[in-house]
Amino acid sequence: MKLTPLIKKAAETLDTPFLVLDLSYVKENYKKLKKAINNVDVFYAVKANSHTKILELLRDEGCSFDAASRGEIDKLLSLGVSPDKISFGNTIKKEIDIKFAWENGIEYYAVDSEMEVEKIARNAPNAKVYGRISTSSNDADWPLSDKFGTDVDHVIQILEYAHRKGLNAYGVSFHVGSQSYNKHKWKEAILNASEVFEKLAAKGINLKLLNLGGGMPVQHVKPIPMVEEIGEVINQSIEEYLGWVDGLKVFTEPGRSMVGNAGIMASKVLLRSIKGTKHWVYLDVGVFHGLMETIENFRYEVVVNNKENHETAEMTLAGPSCDSVDTIYDEIELPVDIDYNDIVYFINTGAYTIEYASPHFNGITPPKVFTVEELKEELQKYKIKSEEIMI
Amino acid sequence: MKLTPLIKKAAETLDTPFLVLDLSYVKENYKKLKKAINNVDVFYAVKANSHTKILELLRDEGCSFDAASRGEIDKLLSLGVSPDKISFGNTIKKEIDIKFAWENGIEYYAVDSEMEVEKIARNAPNAKVYGRISTSSNDADWPLSDKFGTDVDHVIQILEYAHRKGLNAYGVSFHVGSQSYNKHKWKEAILNASEVFEKLAAKGINLKLLNLGGGMPVQHVKPIPMVEEIGEVINQSIEEYLGWVDGLKVFTEPGRSMVGNAGIMASKVLLRSIKGTKHWVYLDVGVFHGLMETIENFRYEVVVNNKENHETAEMTLAGPSCDSVDTIYDEIELPVDIDYNDIVYFINTGAYTIEYASPHFNGITPPKVFTVEELKEELQKYKIKSEEIMI
Repeated sequence: MKLTPLIKKAAETLDTPFLVLDLSYVKENYKKLKKAINNVDVFYAVKANSHTKILELLRDEGCSFDAASRGEIDKLLSLGVSPDKISFGNTIKKEIDIKFAWENGIEYYAVDSEMEVEKIARNAPNAKVYGRISTSSNDADWPLSDKFGTDVDHVIQILEYAHRKGLNAYGVSFHVGSQSYNKHKWKEAILNASEVFEKLAAKGINLKLLNLGGGMPVQHVKPIPMVEEIGEVINQSIEEYLGWVDGLKVFTEPGRSMVGNAGIMASKVLLRSIKGTKHWVYLDVGVFHGLMETIENFRYEVVVNNKENHETAEMTLAGPSCDSVDTIYDEIELPVDIDYNDIVYFINTGAYTIEYASPHFNGITPPKVFTVEELKEELQKYKIKSEEIMI
Repeated sequence: MKLTPLIKKAAETLDTPFLVLDLSYVKENYKKLKKAINNVDVFYAVKANSHTKILELLRDEGCSFDAASRGEIDKLLSLGVSPDKISFGNTIKKEIDIKFAWENGIEYYAVDSEMEVEKIARNAPNAKVYGRISTSSNDADWPLSDKFGTDVDHVIQILEYAHRKGLNAYGVSFHVGSQSYNKHKWKEAILNASEVFEKLAAKGINLKLLNLGGGMPVQHVKPIPMVEEIGEVINQSIEEYLGWVDGLKVFTEPGRSMVGNAGIMASKVLLRSIKGTKHWVYLDVGVFHGLMETIENFRYEVVVNNKENHETAEMTLAGPSCDSVDTIYDEIELPVDIDYNDIVYFINTGAYTIEYASPHFNGITPPKVFTVEELKEELQKYKIKSEEIMI
């Protein structure tokens, strides 16, 4: 999202760190995705950012939701989301949560093991289950096909088992990996999914649902395929491999791609030092207060206010806690003249940031979260003139 | 800490996950440490576990506290801890927090850079500062001498600078790394510290404080040196290298070693599956809900209830969230017959567990925390007979 005069004024005026969310990006992301994939039902993956205003906006747009736990289901129901708009997409569910979900009218459940089928069969007798296949997610920043999903033959066995247990063997899901850079991965995954459809159809089990999972990328420091391009690959692949399925339903479960570009984290430099030959810059935000994804070197665009075009040098960027793991980037190019109190922005940090933050690690509270509207209200307290914060 | 009948009964009866704390271990750890190091003032590193009952117990024992931020200082002051019992030990402080600390009577401040000296000089004009030297912490699980501390010559320059800025250049600190296995590291660090004392004494700056930092280990899966052995090395080294310093004060800042063995995490198996050749066990607790230190493969003793002596096989142990990083151990020996709903204990998880936990990641709340006394009360609600929970 764009670094606006409003955000810059707020970073100069308010305590940092804070995360600002521009919900108009969420709305646009939703609309683009709906348009890009034919007849798709979008299930927003709540875990990416469970901020109430995001959930309300998507609810009002007609979006559905992918929930990871009873906690998320509770929140969605309390916001008036209809249970037929919720899928229980975690393959590792508490049994009492399955019971709760079923009793509250939730129909869709993810599985990738026989044991999960048994847990669902005991508590949600006619539930619609979809089996998750693993994919080769080597082109993604966060592969999700080791802990989750299993091979095509195993998914077929699992869905047959679900059918024998009285469940509604309903479909196939996959996940190409979060922040995937290769649009062709979706084609490969849909081809694999079609094998499950075909082999089960031959046994008289007619699947209805293709769940495309998430994985669409957010713009950070590497080029990414656009949602329209990925949509085209998906539409063609569905037609080619699953065109024969009557009344096929298509779901997708975007998290990162719905909210990632709707956030900017603002922080300040607490300390700069040179130790040996190494230059250190310490910020008031760190790994355990919102930047967890950097632990595996996930790269955000980092902007040092008013020094965007200055000469750079390699430095180490770290957080404020007494924890050595709280090092954001071991090596990053930063302006040679970065200094105490400089404002540092992390761009497109709307997904998987604040959700991880500990409430009191090292006695430090997580960044405050403001929507753009809330930020304007906050600045009014400081008597900032409106022309200074024009977007 | 010992896995007692009380804890076992609680794990069978209550919702998991939960963390149980036995404060008698904290008391014993404190007393042992006081005894092991001659004339030492113990400053408990609050960040290891900021549970109010731990802080109250240590306050009542006469312990001092090492605070990482204003949040921790606030909590300590609100518990009636005297400001002369608090050290501001983070080398990366917010300037307004320094001001707050000084105005509230806190005297001791850690530094490892010129800029931090300037921040303290502006806000805490006569503060006692100690310079942190880096050590070769290659025998520790969590090296802390890259992000923190600097070389001996630089510490000397920093303390001279502090002196010129009107601060009280008061001493030297170090940290051999958290969970250190080599008792001789303390000798090396004290030798290095003594060089700072000597060189500054030659310039007329007479330091008074040796701060030994933390680093003493907790028993997990590898043999560790005992606190008495480490104390002996420390006492001899101080006598050998710093015996000449009049009125030397000795501080230590234990975190892990004060509370690590005072906790056990109880969890249950949510799912077991075989995918390809890999065996997966999924628990209701994971990396983002208390087991953060396992992300770098930190090894706890893991006990599967009633299957302690069963044949084992290599499996992967993962948490309950839809996050691939939420994998506790890629490879761990577990009983071949580990099954759904089995209780799994993580032993000696009193330090650096609950502090990291996100309050709502994936809609999952962190483990509840009980002291032993609270656990007994909780079980009384279930009409458990007292002979079943005898410790």
